Amino acid sequence: MERDEALKIVKGHLTDHRYIHTIGVMETAIALAGKNGADEKKAELAAIFHDYAKFRDKDEMKEIILSTPLEQDLLLYNMELWHAPVGALLVEKEVGIDDKEVLDAIKYHTSGRKGMTTLEKVIYLADYIEPNRSFPGVEEVRQIAETSLDEALIKALQNTIVFLMKKNQAIYPDTFYFYNSLIQNKRS
Amino acid sequence: MERDEALKIVKGHLTDHRYIHTIGVMETAIALAGKNGADEKKAELAAIFHDYAKFRDKDEMKEIILSTPLEQDLLLYNMELWHAPVGALLVEKEVGIDDKEVLDAIKYHTSGRKGMTTLEKVIYLADYIEPNRSFPGVEEVRQIAETSLDEALIKALQNTIVFLMKKNQAIYPDTFYFYNSLIQNKRS
Repeated sequence: MERDEALKIVKGHLTDHRYIHTIGVMETAIALAGKNGADEKKAELAAIFHDYAKFRDKDEMKEIILSTPLEQDLLLYNMELWHAPVGALLVEKEVGIDDKEVLDAIKYHTSGRKGMTTLEKVIYLADYIEPNRSFPGVEEVRQIAETSLDEALIKALQNTIVFLMKKNQAIYPDTFYFYNSLIQNKRS
Repeated sequence: MERDEALKIVKGHLTDHRYIHTIGVMETAIALAGKNGADEKKAELAAIFHDYAKFRDKDEMKEIILSTPLEQDLLLYNMELWHAPVGALLVEKEVGIDDKEVLDAIKYHTSGRKGMTTLEKVIYLADYIEPNRSFPGVEEVRQIAETSLDEALIKALQNTIVFLMKKNQAIYPDTFYFYNSLIQNKRS
């Protein structure tokens, strides 16, 4: 699917603010893919659709999780996580994208998981550092990303886990497995 | 086993500094057990032996993990974790303690795990807040422990996870599962 067609489709599912964020993720993901050896066209497509389900109704998302093979334990954790796996599923069903690498990059862009592919890492990090993001620590992660995808992700995950703990929230297991796998790969 | 006999046995396995720490854990654990409805005698015994394997040789601990049904993934994480499950095993084998509740309180006193029993929580927290401990945040956890075992543990785990992440260390999954179960029990 070409960029213009993809953007046209996704625009109808997003607020203006989220559409601008999506453009930022797209541009950042293409740059990170080029720098880290991931497929730039797949990065572009995954980025465009990463928040496809962001504004779906909570009950609709819950129903989709309950009625599909998606991990049921998602329902025990923050609903902010739900739009990613639900989005991957709907992008396949409603938009017709069937590239598993692209769909997995959408699916894991919020939780992460152990052993993320480079494409999945690129989308995760692009979502975190795209130019419209401004929160404490983001500039440091942007700078680390200039030289190392994995080091930038370690810092991003540490920030995210601390942020969630400060709010007394549970940490989705895939998120700490993602963090642990980055730390352990570094050592091996 | 009576306190004096237990202390005499454990003393031979500890440095003076660690023995003083053990006395602190014992006194704190008995108090926490009394306050939170755990068995005080079991808390006393688990506390006395919680660091039984603390000074075993690294290779001996590794060999024990490799040759027993202990979780093999321990070897992928910080060796600071090893003395707890190895200790539970040796306390059973060498000291002859066969009370599974006591042994599990020793086994999980460093990692924690999902769904800890009250006795296990008491030993974990006593180890963290006993009077000889002095590190940033410990006084706050002591104060919270006056009113809530679980709230004190949440704060202790948050401190521990942040501490390990600042050192770029992996977090043993059971530690996150312990944290998550405390947060999720709070809500239910």
